[in-house]
Amino acid sequence: MEATAPTAGAGANGSLAPAPARAQVGPPTNPMATALLTDQYQFSMAYAYWKAGKHADRAVFDLYFRKNPFGGEFTVFAGLEECVRFIANFKFTADEISFLKSVMPICEDAFFDYLRGIDCSDVEVYSIPEGSVVFPKVPLMRIEGPVAVVQLLETPFVNLINYASLVTTNAARHRHVAGKSKVLMEFGLRRAQGPDGAISASKYCFMGGFDATSNVLAGHLFGIPLRGTHSHAYVSSYMSLTEIPDRTLRNKDGSRICKDFVSLVQEWLHKIQAVDSLSCVFGDTNQSELAAFASYALAFPSNFLALVDTYDVMRSGIPNFCAVALALHDLGYKASGIRLDSGDLAYLSIQARKVFQAIEKEFNIPCFGKMIITASNDLNEETIDALNKQGHEVDAFGIGTYLVTCYSQAALGCVFKLVEINSRPRIKLSEDVAKVSIPCKKRCFRLYGKEGYPLVDIMIRESEPSPKAGERILCRHPFLESKRAYVVPQHVEELLQCYWPGSSNKPRAELPSLEKIRSRCMQQLEKLRPDHIRRLNPTPYKVSVSGKLYEFIHYLWLNEAPVGELQ
Amino acid sequence: MEATAPTAGAGANGSLAPAPARAQVGPPTNPMATALLTDQYQFSMAYAYWKAGKHADRAVFDLYFRKNPFGGEFTVFAGLEECVRFIANFKFTADEISFLKSVMPICEDAFFDYLRGIDCSDVEVYSIPEGSVVFPKVPLMRIEGPVAVVQLLETPFVNLINYASLVTTNAARHRHVAGKSKVLMEFGLRRAQGPDGAISASKYCFMGGFDATSNVLAGHLFGIPLRGTHSHAYVSSYMSLTEIPDRTLRNKDGSRICKDFVSLVQEWLHKIQAVDSLSCVFGDTNQSELAAFASYALAFPSNFLALVDTYDVMRSGIPNFCAVALALHDLGYKASGIRLDSGDLAYLSIQARKVFQAIEKEFNIPCFGKMIITASNDLNEETIDALNKQGHEVDAFGIGTYLVTCYSQAALGCVFKLVEINSRPRIKLSEDVAKVSIPCKKRCFRLYGKEGYPLVDIMIRESEPSPKAGERILCRHPFLESKRAYVVPQHVEELLQCYWPGSSNKPRAELPSLEKIRSRCMQQLEKLRPDHIRRLNPTPYKVSVSGKLYEFIHYLWLNEAPVGELQ
Repeated sequence: MEATAPTAGAGANGSLAPAPARAQVGPPTNPMATALLTDQYQFSMAYAYWKAGKHADRAVFDLYFRKNPFGGEFTVFAGLEECVRFIANFKFTADEISFLKSVMPICEDAFFDYLRGIDCSDVEVYSIPEGSVVFPKVPLMRIEGPVAVVQLLETPFVNLINYASLVTTNAARHRHVAGKSKVLMEFGLRRAQGPDGAISASKYCFMGGFDATSNVLAGHLFGIPLRGTHSHAYVSSYMSLTEIPDRTLRNKDGSRICKDFVSLVQEWLHKIQAVDSLSCVFGDTNQSELAAFASYALAFPSNFLALVDTYDVMRSGIPNFCAVALALHDLGYKASGIRLDSGDLAYLSIQARKVFQAIEKEFNIPCFGKMIITASNDLNEETIDALNKQGHEVDAFGIGTYLVTCYSQAALGCVFKLVEINSRPRIKLSEDVAKVSIPCKKRCFRLYGKEGYPLVDIMIRESEPSPKAGERILCRHPFLESKRAYVVPQHVEELLQCYWPGSSNKPRAELPSLEKIRSRCMQQLEKLRPDHIRRLNPTPYKVSVSGKLYEFIHYLWLNEAPVGELQ
Repeated sequence: MEATAPTAGAGANGSLAPAPARAQVGPPTNPMATALLTDQYQFSMAYAYWKAGKHADRAVFDLYFRKNPFGGEFTVFAGLEECVRFIANFKFTADEISFLKSVMPICEDAFFDYLRGIDCSDVEVYSIPEGSVVFPKVPLMRIEGPVAVVQLLETPFVNLINYASLVTTNAARHRHVAGKSKVLMEFGLRRAQGPDGAISASKYCFMGGFDATSNVLAGHLFGIPLRGTHSHAYVSSYMSLTEIPDRTLRNKDGSRICKDFVSLVQEWLHKIQAVDSLSCVFGDTNQSELAAFASYALAFPSNFLALVDTYDVMRSGIPNFCAVALALHDLGYKASGIRLDSGDLAYLSIQARKVFQAIEKEFNIPCFGKMIITASNDLNEETIDALNKQGHEVDAFGIGTYLVTCYSQAALGCVFKLVEINSRPRIKLSEDVAKVSIPCKKRCFRLYGKEGYPLVDIMIRESEPSPKAGERILCRHPFLESKRAYVVPQHVEELLQCYWPGSSNKPRAELPSLEKIRSRCMQQLEKLRPDHIRRLNPTPYKVSVSGKLYEFIHYLWLNEAPVGELQ
C-alpha cells in the first residue's frame, strides 16, 4: 500500500528533529487517514487561536478513557503505531488547503499560509506501549505541542485509538473465555463497519490473541495467518457426482495414481453406513454435498476441511465427510476436519467426535478421532462461555459479527483533555465527578507487588521524584479523600515513553512488530491478578495519584468551580 | 483521492462491454477496497471450481437481509455506488497475485494465470436503486456471472452494503424522531470504527436525512455541509481577558471600528446582571470562559456559536454568551447561538430560551429570543424521543457515538445466496425457516394501492409475466401456505434495475449524485404508510412471491430436504 498512500514520502518530516528517526515511520495503513480527517471545529479553533496570536501556546493534552468496556475491569491499549504514522506524515496538501479556504471563506489568507506550513516537528508524543493492559483515567498518551496543532490531532488520535483498543480488548476477552488451547479465527470482514473497519478488526484481533483471519487483505498488509475453506454456496453449486470431470488423484508420496477417487469415496460411504456403532449414519446422504466434498478434496487433498451443515449434519454432512476423509487416508493424506455453522454446536460437536472416534476404532485409523471441529455461528464471549459450561468438542472457533462490531459495546469513549497550557495546569470540571479531568503534565507508573502482580497505577506531577522500588509511597484516589493506601513496590515501571520527540533530543521508543505487540499483550494479561480479568464480578484495578497531585487537583477544583446557591 | 487510489485508471475495464459506460465509474472511495478485500475461502473455492472446470459456470446470487434493524419495520438500502465502483475496478495486481501464490502454495500455477486474467466484464449486477426503502427477503441486488468470480465479490459486496444500509437506516430513524424542522448534525468521527467507518458514517447519515457533518474529509470527498465551533479545551485554554491582544473589531457594514470589543462585552455583562427578570444570572461568571468567548467572537463575528457548559451553563455560560452576543449586536452582527453538551438538555434549553427571550424584550433586540440552541451529549433515538416527550427548546442536534456505531444493533446481517447455477435453481435449506433461501433467478416488483402507498413487494420467476396495474395478482407468503392475498395494484414498480450490464447490451442505470439519493430516500420514506415507520409496534410490510414461485420453492424444498426419523 505504501506507494499509493497520499501522504507517503519524506515531505512531512520536520526539519528540527533528527531525520533518521522519522524516516522509519511509514504512512498510515489507511490512506484516508490524512490531515483533513478531523472535526471542523478543530479548524475553527485553530483560526481563533491564530487570530488571537495564541496558536503556538505550548499545550499538554492527555488521551484517556473513563470506563473499561464490556463490563470488564481491563482494557488493552492499541492504535499507537497508526497515531505515530499519522503525525509522521501530517501535512496539508495544496488541494486540502484550497478546500479549507472554500469552506472557511471568512478566514484571512495568512491563516492558510500558516496551515500550509504546519507539521508535527514541534509535537511530542509520550505513550504507554501498544499492547499494554491499561486502566481508566491513566493517560494512554500525553501529547504536547502548539495548541492549534495538537487540537487538530485530537479527532484522528481518538478515532485511531478508540476502535483499535476496543476490538483488541474484545479479542482478548474472547481468548480468555475460549482458553489457550483453542484456535481462534476472526471471520468478521463481511459484517465489519466498512473496509478498514474490517482491516483494523483483523489486525487488532490478532493483537488481542486471535490466531488467524479470513481477511486476505489483512493477511497481505500485516502477515496475519489466513484461514478459510468453502461456503454453503459451494456445496449447493454441485448437483451430482457426474459433475466431477477429472477423478484421478495421485497419492501423497507420489508413488501411484488413484484413477477413480469418486468411486473410492462411494465405497467408503457404503462401508461406514454398514457399521452398527455409527447409529447416527443411515439412509442416503445428499449427493450434491458428496460431490462438493469429493471435488474439494481433489483440489485440496492435503488440507481437506468441509462445512458439514448445508443439509443435515448427522445424516448427511458427517458421513459424507468421513467417506471422503477415509478415501484420502487410503492415498496417504490426512483430512483436517469439519466446520459447523448452525444448530446446537455443543451437541453436534460431541456427536461428530463420537463418529470420528468410532471410525478410528472400527477401521483402525490413528488420529481420526482427533479430527478438528470448527464452529462458527454467531459466536461471542457469552456463547463460548455457555458452550464451555455445557461441554463441547470444538477445537477452533470462527468469530465474526459480535467480535468485530463489538456488538455488546460499540465504542470505548476515549477523551482528549487539556491538562496544561504555557505551563499552567488546567482542569475540566463537570457535575459528574467521573468526568472531572486530572490536571497537570504528569508521569505515570505501575507499581508491582511481591508476587509479581501489578498493584496500582499512580500519576504524579512531572516535577515530583519517581516512585522507587522498596520505598513507601502514598497512593490516593484522585477524588475521594478517604481512599488512600501506602504501597512499597517491589518493582516500578514508568508507563509513558517517548514515541515522538518533536524538537527535543529525547530518544524515541521503537515501534515493535505486530507479533511483538501481540506477545506483550499476552504477557501483560498473564501478569495481571486473575480476579481483574474474570468474567463475573471482576475486581477493579486501582488507579491513584500522589499526595501532591491530589492536593493540587482539589486546590484547582475549588478555585475554578462556582459556589452554588440553593433557592 | 482519485489520483492516489491503487485501482484507478482504465486498466480494469473489461474488453467485452461498451467502454464509455465503464469509464464513468471511478475507483472505490476507500482505496483499500481492492480485489484482495475478500475472505480466504473465496480463493479456496475459486481454486476448487477451477480444478473441477466449473469456474465459468453461470451462477446467480441474491444479496438480501433477513430482518429489519433497530426493532423497526423498514430499512434504507445504501452502498450500491461503492459496489459498482468496486467491480468497475476489480482486477488483481501482480503484487496481489504473488501474495496469493505465497499463501496458497498448493495451487497450480495455471490457476494464478486464470486469476490474473479475471475482471467483472462478464458479471451482471441488478439492484434496487440506492436510497430506496427495502424489506427483508427481497433481493437488494442480483449478481450473475462466472461462479468463481461472483464468489470473490460476495465478501466485499456484503461488507460495502451492510454498514452503509445500517447507518443510513439509523440516520433515517433519527430524522423521523427529531422531525423535519430540526437540524441534524453527525458528530461521530472520533467514536466511529476507524477512519472510513467515520467517512462512511458521514456519507450515509447525510443520505439518511442528516443536514451536516463535523468530518472535514467527508465534506471534501462528498460535498456534505460542515459544522463545528469550539470545544471545552478551547474555553479552558484561556485564563483571563488580558490574553486577548487585539481587541478591535470593525462593525459589520465596515463603517467604523470598535477599539475595545472586550470592554463592550464587559459593559453588556454588567447590564444583563442588573436585569431583575434574568433571575438565573447573578454573581461572577467564569473569566476564562468570557475571554474564550470574546476571543472566539473576534475571530468569527458573523457566526458566533458558543459551547456554554464548560463551567456552569446558567450561572456562567449563558450570561457570558449573552454579553458577547449583545456586544456583537451593537456592531451590527447577529450571533448564531449556543451548544449544550452536558446536563439536563430539556431543562437547560428551556431556561436558556427564557433568558434569550427576556433579553429580546428588555433590550428590544429583535430575534434574540430565537437564538439557535444546539444539543450534543450522547444523543440517540431514545433520548430525542424522551426530550420530545418532556418538551425542550433545542433547534439542532449533534449526534455521534450511538448514530455512527449503530450502538443498538451493530450489524445488519446481509447474506449472499446462490439461487441458480447453469439455469438450475438452487435452495439453501435450514432448520430455521427464516433462513431458507428463495431459489431461482427472480424479478421483483413493488405494488402500490389507491392511496399511493406501497402495498406489498412480490418476487416472481424471471420467465413469468410482470404484474400489471389494474390486473389482479395472487401474492403468497413464501413459506406459510395460509398467508396469501389477491392484489389489484394501481401502480407497479420494477425494483431491480441493471447497474452493470457485463457482456450484455442492456442499458445501464445511472449512478445518481449523493444529493439525489438523499432526496430519493426522503421521498420513499414519505410515501410509506406511517404505521410501518412509527417507533412503537410498527406494522410489518408484506413481502410475497407469486403462486408459481411458491409452488416451485416447495417442490425444491421437499426434493432436497432429507426425511426425518424420530428415534
